[in-house]
Amino acid sequence: MSLGQLYVISAPSGAGKTSLVKRLTDSDPLIKVSVSTTTRPPRPGEVDGVNYHFTDVETFKQEVAQGDFLEWAEVFGNYYGTQQSQVARLLEQGFDVILEIDWQGAQQVREKIPGTQSIFIVPPSLEELERRLIGRGTDAPEVIARRLSEAKDEMRHYPEFDYLVINDDFDVAFEELHTIFKANRLRTERQQARHGAILDALVK
Amino acid sequence: MSLGQLYVISAPSGAGKTSLVKRLTDSDPLIKVSVSTTTRPPRPGEVDGVNYHFTDVETFKQEVAQGDFLEWAEVFGNYYGTQQSQVARLLEQGFDVILEIDWQGAQQVREKIPGTQSIFIVPPSLEELERRLIGRGTDAPEVIARRLSEAKDEMRHYPEFDYLVINDDFDVAFEELHTIFKANRLRTERQQARHGAILDALVK
Repeated sequence: MSLGQLYVISAPSGAGKTSLVKRLTDSDPLIKVSVSTTTRPPRPGEVDGVNYHFTDVETFKQEVAQGDFLEWAEVFGNYYGTQQSQVARLLEQGFDVILEIDWQGAQQVREKIPGTQSIFIVPPSLEELERRLIGRGTDAPEVIARRLSEAKDEMRHYPEFDYLVINDDFDVAFEELHTIFKANRLRTERQQARHGAILDALVK
Repeated sequence: MSLGQLYVISAPSGAGKTSLVKRLTDSDPLIKVSVSTTTRPPRPGEVDGVNYHFTDVETFKQEVAQGDFLEWAEVFGNYYGTQQSQVARLLEQGFDVILEIDWQGAQQVREKIPGTQSIFIVPPSLEELERRLIGRGTDAPEVIARRLSEAKDEMRHYPEFDYLVINDDFDVAFEELHTIFKANRLRTERQQARHGAILDALVK
């Protein structure tokens, strides 16, 4: 029985997932984001163990074969994934651990770790999502059109998730997300892991 | 798909359940306590439909036979129970509904309504529980000894419950309880019931 709880958080691009998760980890010292492992080369400024665990293709494939990956995917020839050993260490230390992955990764993790809690974040409307994607000011119209279409594909999977947060107002969405974490710490198994001595004394 | 969520809250005598539930319903208009039905005669000041739904033995037994009771028990010749029709009406109106019952009632309700969320409240220690029972100043020592022994029997069932709240500090315990209610409103099925139109528009 590990002290921490594993979460999967998925969202379409533009729903605000990254900012919400950053605010969560900034404001609650018991929450950590799992650092993914990748075979893609580090970009300037990226630090091994902070942005990613950087590795080579051979090692990656070996560890996949050994079953150490909770989920993984190949994207444009590069491998990305979450290592079970990394996650297990944080959970045993008592941290709630977030995996920021897509619905396919979420499905893999749910199958491997049945107690995983999954959260899906959506924007309040497609119009608002488009405004946010345009507002970034970095993408060409055809890129935005593609992202919107991908977002719709991703959102079709929201019913597979345990919780749903609608990110209309950022502060409200943050409070809602945080509430999910706080409530799950009150689950009987978690309380037993944290307060075993108190509970044993009550029923001795 | 009803809008509200059904809760069972159990606790040993002296854990503070009644005060905590009162504060919950006082501070959150979406939470209601289900009024039990009983065949015991009203005491002075008790109002039908507020303290209990008062009924006669024949009617009670008939409704039990018709399967309208979520849970019921006979205590010293009087019948007490929770009527499904009463609870269903509140849930359909969008209220979260609390049943304050013991572990046996909780077991009956869980079997009948699988999505029920159950919460157990415990004191921080047996010593503190004893202090609280003595502090009431109303009971003889032998009554207190019996209540303590009954409390221990009740507490042995805490592992059957989904959530556990340790009522050491009243304000903290209240916040924890409330957090459970707020988080469950974010469950995907509940969000679908409340925000169906928004979600349909996102995946259309």
